[in-house]
Amino acid sequence: MTDFDGALRWSDDGLELIDQTLLPHEVRVLRIDTVDGLRDAIARLAVRGAPALGAAGALGVVVAMDQAVREGWDGNRLAAEIDGLRRARPTAVNLAWGVDRAAARLPDGRDAVVAAALAIVEADARGNRAMGARAADFLEAVLPERPLRLLTHCNSGALCATEWGTGLGVVRELAARGRVDHVLVDETRPLLQGSRLTAWELARAGIDHAVISDAAAAGLIVGGQVDAVIIGADRIAANGDTANKVGSLGLALAAADAGAPFVVAAPESTIDHATPHGGAIEIEYRDEDEVLSFAGRRVAPAGSRGLNPAFDVTPARLLTAIVTEQRLVHVARGEQPGRSAATAVS
Amino acid sequence: MTDFDGALRWSDDGLELIDQTLLPHEVRVLRIDTVDGLRDAIARLAVRGAPALGAAGALGVVVAMDQAVREGWDGNRLAAEIDGLRRARPTAVNLAWGVDRAAARLPDGRDAVVAAALAIVEADARGNRAMGARAADFLEAVLPERPLRLLTHCNSGALCATEWGTGLGVVRELAARGRVDHVLVDETRPLLQGSRLTAWELARAGIDHAVISDAAAAGLIVGGQVDAVIIGADRIAANGDTANKVGSLGLALAAADAGAPFVVAAPESTIDHATPHGGAIEIEYRDEDEVLSFAGRRVAPAGSRGLNPAFDVTPARLLTAIVTEQRLVHVARGEQPGRSAATAVS
Repeated sequence: MTDFDGALRWSDDGLELIDQTLLPHEVRVLRIDTVDGLRDAIARLAVRGAPALGAAGALGVVVAMDQAVREGWDGNRLAAEIDGLRRARPTAVNLAWGVDRAAARLPDGRDAVVAAALAIVEADARGNRAMGARAADFLEAVLPERPLRLLTHCNSGALCATEWGTGLGVVRELAARGRVDHVLVDETRPLLQGSRLTAWELARAGIDHAVISDAAAAGLIVGGQVDAVIIGADRIAANGDTANKVGSLGLALAAADAGAPFVVAAPESTIDHATPHGGAIEIEYRDEDEVLSFAGRRVAPAGSRGLNPAFDVTPARLLTAIVTEQRLVHVARGEQPGRSAATAVS
Repeated sequence: MTDFDGALRWSDDGLELIDQTLLPHEVRVLRIDTVDGLRDAIARLAVRGAPALGAAGALGVVVAMDQAVREGWDGNRLAAEIDGLRRARPTAVNLAWGVDRAAARLPDGRDAVVAAALAIVEADARGNRAMGARAADFLEAVLPERPLRLLTHCNSGALCATEWGTGLGVVRELAARGRVDHVLVDETRPLLQGSRLTAWELARAGIDHAVISDAAAAGLIVGGQVDAVIIGADRIAANGDTANKVGSLGLALAAADAGAPFVVAAPESTIDHATPHGGAIEIEYRDEDEVLSFAGRRVAPAGSRGLNPAFDVTPARLLTAIVTEQRLVHVARGEQPGRSAATAVS
């Protein structure tokens, strides 16, 4: 179907993305030549997911440099374009992080920027494997009895990263160890990243799974049909409050009620040390048409409006653990992931 | 658009239903001449909602009697057809209740059965007004400060009843009193009764509302943007555990976390005194295609299966109150709605 290992690919020809809006029915590769093209791809979620946005942002700086040469931009224009790219999605901290990491090398020339961006891609792939192994170790330790019935939300797989994935990488690792019975996949309205993307990845990986409506998750969790919930994250405040795809908070409430572990797997770059708690995280509201329509067809009456928050914030008190490529933060035992939280305490 | 006051209408011509699967874009009236036709309408949710199913079941006994005359059924065939109608949807207790109430008058002839069925219709309409007023009094008392921001799920309006509605009837009553700021409407996957039916009713009634994805509800409730959650019910166990449209439990968990009232409005006939607690309620699983597809179009990969519980059970510990046409059961203060629960205690 594709030789992509994840959401994107970099070659001498430049940046290419899988257009995730067309999955699972069509695998179309987008060639990205302009900053506007990349911003558009990010805005309409052709590429999405925290780690992939970090990598795309970093490689986007190279795209901007090449476009600047082609179109004769001055330095101010280049800086403005890079800043616009940086702010293409407000909640995802990794996008800005990736842009900043690559842009810091601008004075050293294109090769240095490319090297910085590719270092992010390679570190992400290595990091995903490391966090997957660490989180799998943790879940095997706390749930030693039997093959696990897991539940996940949105897509935190290879398609949100450069390969393997974060939350879904944990699922892959547990499956490789023979510890997965099956995976319940929230369809994840409004854009159905679960039924379109996560189900596609699990089907390709041969991991048994069933798609459920988002609304069904709480009943299945509280009803004892789920051993653990595993998700990624879009931004983690210093105290552990976590912004993720809208619907994650509901899963955390249900898991807490059921006493099931709720594990967040995300790269260190997702931890926003400058944000002390979830109340300071800006929540992106997307176009109301995403909830009022489907596939271009209006569902709701003409007179109805919609409200479409893309994320919600799960308070740290509802998390079991945050697992990164470097460490496990046992939030349920009072550990906090961020420096400013530690500073606030000390 | 229609002169129907609710889901169905009875006249000398027989039973007519609005085909709710076509709303909000088309108002089509179904004439019901056969038991099979009614069972089909119930199975594909052309008519749905606990009170409407009670009325449809009762009037369906008349439909069966007329069909029996036309087609020369014997008494055994008639009884078997009525029993099949009774079991068309396993979780909704009102359907069987309505069938049984009307069928009890079979020995007295058609006029007596019609009278029993129409008595259910009329009592439902009166009862909805009474429960709406009672629940509105309660919410005005506990939330006296300002126009209320309400959240509801699925459709508990006139379309689930004979007129006015249960949960949505409370909203109508509060709106008539000038106490509604706006209503957040869960779209209610997989069949979108919220964005299709509840939004249609609220738009017609001129009540300000916004459709949200089911997954967005928890974040909005816990984030303090909802003053109260009001829903109907499909079956209430004697101890107060309540089966409702899948997704209701998640709302209850969020409301409990936020300290927002969670009110169930349902007729007394929804209370199943023979069922001691929620664990004894059979949950209907519907066709997996409802979650694997959206608006008739396949979303998930061909290799993926789906899991589609139609209901979940909210434990009584998460409810604030159950309001019926006869009484308010203050569940949060330890009151229980059912006789067998009272018996178990005494």
